[in-house]
Amino acid sequence: MRVGLIRVMTTSDRRLLHAHGKLLQEAFGFTVTSRCIPDQPSGVYDQASLESAAPKVVQLAQEMAGEADALIISCTSDPGLAATRAAVAIPVIGAGAAAAAAALTFGGRIGVLGLGAHVPGPIAESLGDRMLLIDGEGRLETPDAFLMPAGIFDALAAAHMLVDAGADVIVQASTGLSSIGMADVLRRRLGVPVIDAVTAAGSMLVSAVFAREVQKV
Amino acid sequence: MRVGLIRVMTTSDRRLLHAHGKLLQEAFGFTVTSRCIPDQPSGVYDQASLESAAPKVVQLAQEMAGEADALIISCTSDPGLAATRAAVAIPVIGAGAAAAAAALTFGGRIGVLGLGAHVPGPIAESLGDRMLLIDGEGRLETPDAFLMPAGIFDALAAAHMLVDAGADVIVQASTGLSSIGMADVLRRRLGVPVIDAVTAAGSMLVSAVFAREVQKV
Repeated sequence: MRVGLIRVMTTSDRRLLHAHGKLLQEAFGFTVTSRCIPDQPSGVYDQASLESAAPKVVQLAQEMAGEADALIISCTSDPGLAATRAAVAIPVIGAGAAAAAAALTFGGRIGVLGLGAHVPGPIAESLGDRMLLIDGEGRLETPDAFLMPAGIFDALAAAHMLVDAGADVIVQASTGLSSIGMADVLRRRLGVPVIDAVTAAGSMLVSAVFAREVQKV
Repeated sequence: MRVGLIRVMTTSDRRLLHAHGKLLQEAFGFTVTSRCIPDQPSGVYDQASLESAAPKVVQLAQEMAGEADALIISCTSDPGLAATRAAVAIPVIGAGAAAAAAALTFGGRIGVLGLGAHVPGPIAESLGDRMLLIDGEGRLETPDAFLMPAGIFDALAAAHMLVDAGADVIVQASTGLSSIGMADVLRRRLGVPVIDAVTAAGSMLVSAVFAREVQKV
């Protein structure tokens, strides 16, 4: 159960680089190796940054596949997911599709919490008319905004607005929220299920690939 | 993280009753209380048995909800899922929808392994044209068949046929296969991801409700 985790945001900060891997190690006992794509310090936040990231993800996946039993593309836009699957022989999970799938297994309306201007494609496509968005949201432009207090306060306010508007479950549509452990905070404050996209990706591996080994950890 | 698990098959055998709960306790550290619906010793295997089970599931869910943080309907047909959600205030996960969602997060074609004559509704509806079925399959009529050697051999043969026919991932479309721990056997023999429906249901709770508590177990 060696998981290769691809960060779709360039950083030289080791703690930030391993934030998602740490989440998965603690929740599931995976051994996680994290690497990030080059030259995208603000990650993926629009169509151009998505298109720029995709081939870098495929390249990195090919370098990592030999040392891993499965790969996670740790970004809710799932850049390069199909091409990566075609390029490597091990299972590949995208955090966006995983988060959407997990959200759909709960009842009711699904509030999408993320960057105001950009709902990741895999999430918008999967949720259909169960998706709930807040119009006022939209001040945050890139995922690294969640590393600053103002971004955290914005996300909390937006989550409250989503619940007030009728969301029965919240899906974190940016893995920037995973990096700061926001799901725990929101669950305690909101009292509804909150999907963490990175954890959702790990969960899919547990469902299908690693189930029995977890107990040995 | 107290999970109420509803077995949609009547049994007085305590080991069988708790087989799914044990799986979830070992994989995720949940505290699981299992109860079964009355008067359906063969579980759900066709439309009539599904319709008979649904109100019993709702009734049992109402009795269990006070002592649980979440409920799992541990049957891939998700009997009574919508009505149960309307009747209780805690999250409710159906093993069928959860298994289908987990399967869809993997790439390629999804082989459905279960009772030949009956593909559970939540699985057929979710998988669409990614679903792969074996025509020859169909000797097993009720989920308790998987408790007998002939049923286990049949399931193994069907799983091999699915992989030979091009399945990239297998979804176990009967929780009878969860009761005997079949997913582990299949993963070792087939070398493809195999979705256990009960584990998938637990995974969805970890993604959204219980993530941080698991590490304390």
